[in-house]
Amino acid sequence: MFAEILTIGDELLSGNTVDSNAAFIASKLTERGYWVRRITTVGDDVEEIKVAVMEILGRKPEVLVISGGLGPTHDDVTMLAVAEALERKLVQCEECLERIKVFYEKLYREGYIDDPNLNEGRRKMTYLPEGAEPLENTEGAAPGAFIEHDGVKIFVLPGMPREMKAMLEKEVLPRLGKRKFVQRKFLAEITDESKLAPLLKEALEEFNVRIHSSPKGFGKYIGLIIFAEDEKEVDKVTQFLNDRGISLEPWKL
Amino acid sequence: MFAEILTIGDELLSGNTVDSNAAFIASKLTERGYWVRRITTVGDDVEEIKVAVMEILGRKPEVLVISGGLGPTHDDVTMLAVAEALERKLVQCEECLERIKVFYEKLYREGYIDDPNLNEGRRKMTYLPEGAEPLENTEGAAPGAFIEHDGVKIFVLPGMPREMKAMLEKEVLPRLGKRKFVQRKFLAEITDESKLAPLLKEALEEFNVRIHSSPKGFGKYIGLIIFAEDEKEVDKVTQFLNDRGISLEPWKL
Repeated sequence: MFAEILTIGDELLSGNTVDSNAAFIASKLTERGYWVRRITTVGDDVEEIKVAVMEILGRKPEVLVISGGLGPTHDDVTMLAVAEALERKLVQCEECLERIKVFYEKLYREGYIDDPNLNEGRRKMTYLPEGAEPLENTEGAAPGAFIEHDGVKIFVLPGMPREMKAMLEKEVLPRLGKRKFVQRKFLAEITDESKLAPLLKEALEEFNVRIHSSPKGFGKYIGLIIFAEDEKEVDKVTQFLNDRGISLEPWKL
Repeated sequence: MFAEILTIGDELLSGNTVDSNAAFIASKLTERGYWVRRITTVGDDVEEIKVAVMEILGRKPEVLVISGGLGPTHDDVTMLAVAEALERKLVQCEECLERIKVFYEKLYREGYIDDPNLNEGRRKMTYLPEGAEPLENTEGAAPGAFIEHDGVKIFVLPGMPREMKAMLEKEVLPRLGKRKFVQRKFLAEITDESKLAPLLKEALEEFNVRIHSSPKGFGKYIGLIIFAEDEKEVDKVTQFLNDRGISLEPWKL
């Protein structure tokens, strides 16, 4: 039961943009109880995207969230690449065509653009892989897509953070089942991470949790993030560590 | 002639940390003329890391930069996983052992830690894949590693940004050949990205460049990043766009 994330954009590969989208998607999936197993980033290239999608599907995740490359320009090729990876045709979504017409007419009336007509680039955004359900973009033009394929729930979202976030919250999360997953953060008062290591190893063997630890500066604290299916299991770990002389305090990020 | 980046850490997959390391490494490699083809992120798990490394090596990049998971705790397993992926043994690096002894003795004298001795966790950091050249960590304990394997230059760096950045600048970049690559950024005064699309498509066919475009808000500007082997080729593109009525101004990020 795991999820994967695929972010798309030359600006990510050139380092011009830090991939905060991947972290946002990851945090929302983690909150929902999904184990995000891998994040992949490729450029705005049909072949690269197609290969990456096929590789991810081969690992059989429950959920795949893709973000980026849905706009009107030459380098927005995600829907085409996803369609090719799934061996589906790109077909026009009538509902999307209507929405995009309304969207550009509104921008035109408000004086943001010179021409409300649907040129080739704008029209491109109305094509989705065959069988996809369109996802509404409340913050921009390009619709997203939801596709169930060989047991994988695939969501294709825009790359603009404002659009992606709105679509994730309004269109993706409601389509994922309700699951519970607890993630609690602590600061351990201990002067050196390596002294904590054998205790964490023991806790991992004894309890049904995942623990991530990271130093917060020498002589200060070690940050601990404990993941579990319920609060009780987290409490067992904190009790275990307390009993061995490690005092924990809540860690507010 | 391309590079790949592998970042490692549960905190990246849970969305607790935004992967700014990947962007930093990507920008430095891009400046040096490498095309970063893919960025992969996996968790602190021997099998996940091993599989990812093997997949990347199968694509035969010129350079692979790995970052994360070199510390003393239970979840720092990168060197072990890399060794397994390369079918090499982990062997103790005598030079690293000496450095780490000195490092902890200094922290002890300065009052940052209670015990200067090398426990299991600290000792773990002195093991590198057989045949690796150690990379000096001027900002922390864990050494990095440089391994040439089947024609791929593999660099293994820490995940703490300060340590990673110093090692990249001082130990990695000097080991990469000098190549030139130009990346120039512009803002195009145009009200709608989709009107620019056919012109960019034409420019891509005519000139030896890569262009990334992204909207900077409706009614304002479109951001353009032009990549080329020399300035002249960039100038040809800006001239081409100017001739077609698109005025560009330098874009300062």
